[in-house]
Amino acid sequence: MTDSGVATHPAGVPADLMSLSYEPLTPTAYLDRAAASHGTRTAVVDGDRSWTYAELHERCRKLAGGLAAIHGGRPVAVLVPNTHVGLEAAFGVPWSGAALVAVNTRLSAGEVAYILEHANASVLVHDPDFDELVADALGRLDSPPQVVRVGDDYERLITWGEPTAVTPDDERALLSINYTSGTTGNPKGVMYHHRGAYLQALSMAGHTGLTPSSVHLWTLPMFHCNGWCFPWAVTAAAATHVCLPRVEPARIWELIRGHGVTHLNGAPTVLSMIAYAPEAHTVQTPVKVATGGAPPSPAILRRMAELGFEVTHLYGLTETFGPAMICDWQPEWNNLDEDAQARMKARQGVGNMIACAVRVITDDGSDAPADGQTTGQIALRGNNVMLGYLKDEQATRDAAPDGWFRTGDIGVMHPDGYVELRDRSKDVIISGGENIASVEVEQAIADHPAVLEAAVIAVPDERWGEVPAAYVTLREGASATEQEIVEHVRARLARFKAPKSVTFTELPKTSTGKIQKFVLRDAAWSGRDRRIGS
Amino acid sequence: MTDSGVATHPAGVPADLMSLSYEPLTPTAYLDRAAASHGTRTAVVDGDRSWTYAELHERCRKLAGGLAAIHGGRPVAVLVPNTHVGLEAAFGVPWSGAALVAVNTRLSAGEVAYILEHANASVLVHDPDFDELVADALGRLDSPPQVVRVGDDYERLITWGEPTAVTPDDERALLSINYTSGTTGNPKGVMYHHRGAYLQALSMAGHTGLTPSSVHLWTLPMFHCNGWCFPWAVTAAAATHVCLPRVEPARIWELIRGHGVTHLNGAPTVLSMIAYAPEAHTVQTPVKVATGGAPPSPAILRRMAELGFEVTHLYGLTETFGPAMICDWQPEWNNLDEDAQARMKARQGVGNMIACAVRVITDDGSDAPADGQTTGQIALRGNNVMLGYLKDEQATRDAAPDGWFRTGDIGVMHPDGYVELRDRSKDVIISGGENIASVEVEQAIADHPAVLEAAVIAVPDERWGEVPAAYVTLREGASATEQEIVEHVRARLARFKAPKSVTFTELPKTSTGKIQKFVLRDAAWSGRDRRIGS
Repeated sequence: MTDSGVATHPAGVPADLMSLSYEPLTPTAYLDRAAASHGTRTAVVDGDRSWTYAELHERCRKLAGGLAAIHGGRPVAVLVPNTHVGLEAAFGVPWSGAALVAVNTRLSAGEVAYILEHANASVLVHDPDFDELVADALGRLDSPPQVVRVGDDYERLITWGEPTAVTPDDERALLSINYTSGTTGNPKGVMYHHRGAYLQALSMAGHTGLTPSSVHLWTLPMFHCNGWCFPWAVTAAAATHVCLPRVEPARIWELIRGHGVTHLNGAPTVLSMIAYAPEAHTVQTPVKVATGGAPPSPAILRRMAELGFEVTHLYGLTETFGPAMICDWQPEWNNLDEDAQARMKARQGVGNMIACAVRVITDDGSDAPADGQTTGQIALRGNNVMLGYLKDEQATRDAAPDGWFRTGDIGVMHPDGYVELRDRSKDVIISGGENIASVEVEQAIADHPAVLEAAVIAVPDERWGEVPAAYVTLREGASATEQEIVEHVRARLARFKAPKSVTFTELPKTSTGKIQKFVLRDAAWSGRDRRIGS
Repeated sequence: MTDSGVATHPAGVPADLMSLSYEPLTPTAYLDRAAASHGTRTAVVDGDRSWTYAELHERCRKLAGGLAAIHGGRPVAVLVPNTHVGLEAAFGVPWSGAALVAVNTRLSAGEVAYILEHANASVLVHDPDFDELVADALGRLDSPPQVVRVGDDYERLITWGEPTAVTPDDERALLSINYTSGTTGNPKGVMYHHRGAYLQALSMAGHTGLTPSSVHLWTLPMFHCNGWCFPWAVTAAAATHVCLPRVEPARIWELIRGHGVTHLNGAPTVLSMIAYAPEAHTVQTPVKVATGGAPPSPAILRRMAELGFEVTHLYGLTETFGPAMICDWQPEWNNLDEDAQARMKARQGVGNMIACAVRVITDDGSDAPADGQTTGQIALRGNNVMLGYLKDEQATRDAAPDGWFRTGDIGVMHPDGYVELRDRSKDVIISGGENIASVEVEQAIADHPAVLEAAVIAVPDERWGEVPAAYVTLREGASATEQEIVEHVRARLARFKAPKSVTFTELPKTSTGKIQKFVLRDAAWSGRDRRIGS
């Protein structure tokens, strides 16, 4: 056991007695508890199948045993929609003694291949939905990982090994690697530790009020920050997970009705899909919704409230285990009018119960005054911050120049201690809850032989909140169509990253030749009340 | 920073980057958060006075500064009813760099003196209610602590020093010392660590559903296991604390009405006082009640439910930061009839979210089968277990012979993983939520010149659940009255420990001369359905 207190406890407790009061924090412990205390409760519903907590526990231990026999200590990647396999991986992969890499299923083959190679993945567990994508990705690798296809392959793996459950002595051991699109060319591997996921999950369970009577619908992708740590949070409360492989409004409403869903998470886009579906109706029991990725609009908040959904706005990043901040609702705000309430709720809020104080740091390194006016970069540190970027010490150092992780998002501190985003400094477009680095799309476009230079910004979109729009200057004498440019990007990046429009134009520039994206943005967003975007 | 991961992180993170993702866990951090994010919310209501979280934060930092100037690193004791001072001490004393000793206000002068001396207390903060008790206790000490009387003295202390907030590098540093009556003569000092209190508080906030809209009424003494860690749990949620110096039913109802109380904790005795008070009525908004110390009876559960109170049964000891177990309500039980529900709720339950698995260990050291029949000793370990007993390594070793803390309580493991108490092996009487060691009372009685030998057992009591009853054999030719024996004990121990009845009789014994308490108990408890007691 690695425990700093063992040798020299200040109260003079002998070293050999210190283990009585110490257990390394790991989020897999929540499944041990749920199986012991709620073994017969339904843990997972996935279509027509379901498993109790005792069964889930056993399946995860068997998965761990099977994986341990083949992974050689290297990370295990999973490429699955929100099925029982994603949940089983959240426990079974760590218990096998390997780090979990939950891959975004919307990525291109090239991106998947990059991640598998960068993470040094030993095994890739994938859903049959992605047979083609996997074949394409693996074809690009010199030493591809061993492939386990969900179905017979996966069930065989589960029966292979001795059930096992390895837990780390060091609670800050590597738990998982979550790839973020970030802002420069290649995705970065964000390293999670067991302690952080344990604490974040407990905090999420508390803030969202999960209990054994709760039923959580998986509208948030499990590959986003390990599902904001909710595979562990829902299990900590011994609530029921309801899987949702595809975000289809009709199916969501069917599951809400059929399973008595009490909790779900998702980007505002997902909320819109639910709220404006033909099946939408007022729910009998309130459904608690945590939303993030972009501020929910007053219109969607009003509509959700009418339908009986209680929306809480959260804010975080892959680097912070998901929501590091919460717009903690204050009872005094119940007296405000609807618009004022919506404005309050659209703020990103305050650190969650386990987060360190949130800072807004100005360019000179000082804290922005709490005046709701002075902008600075939102900065975080503490137990729910990543260990760093895998194999990229310099990027880690750059992101945390003084021990405070810079989110890249620009905000203000209000007098009441609540932070509100004003802009993103890192040129990130958030489309339907997915991050897109504009520079990545720009580089893909610039790769086209006809293109001289390109700028990509977020433009408003009814359905996705934001979508990427490209502004392109062609080389002299060259020609290309909008469709050609879009197809060119689609061949290289995930489809959702392709620009939804291409405008051929001269790009506005400063006297020193720097592209003035704000000019493009101001035109695209004119007439909008709130603008947060690239 | 003492952190085991710093030097050799398995994922190869450089040591100097490890601080980005690490902050030592300490429950005082919850007040930092509450002040930053809910600074204007009412933190504490105490009679006509109230303080916001920003004000409470500042007062605690000032208290810390004042204490740091005088405590010389030695523990600080407080002897106060449930007032704002008790809450301020929960943050201000640790921030001053000293351990907190919250002394049971019901103890005798001799007991208080023992604790002050044993803990090596440097300062005693006390309420004017206890002037006489303090004078008497201090008169018994060679080097009494410095006394700070609540009122002018205390307010002066708060203005003395520079505001300060020391936090430990080692999260398992000593946080507080809580004295338990235990089972042998002198009280034992249970040492709490910062990490345990942090995690226990977060778990309690989650299980009881505390939010910023919650209002917590202090019906549980803050000197019991540091109020089950609720000074920190309520603050973690940024809810409001409502103080209650004396448990008076009329006052409780007045505060429930006047402040919109949503949460309270207490022994079943307190629940009875509330439920059967003349002021009792059905509450508008459900009040969540956590009860422990003894199983709530079906009658009180039924009555509380009628009044709109939602009762959860918890179980724990001083050694486990209060409730290590919770009778986690399962939604399936809603379909049971009232009696069956009451039986379910009277069980002690399962480990709380942060507890390690609970064990029931038989005499041969193996786990009792989960058959609801086989008895064994309930055993716990992990992050919400004490560091040990202060200056009593042997007692710590005896209590945890194999790394599992033996609670001294005998229980069974049900097939569903829930534990139910069947008996207490340590001869403890629980009267109105207070523990009384029968051996301690026996020794006090035996000290009377007329007494030959004595046995003390718990007998049922309508109001207190249990009370101590004495069976006494007088020396040949000697005489004493019941009143004399009672007064004799009162002069030595806390008043609540004195026997409520004294029977002069021959004591039943085994052939080897051991007193057969079970014979006395069987007679006293005949006709009772459930018997847990000494």
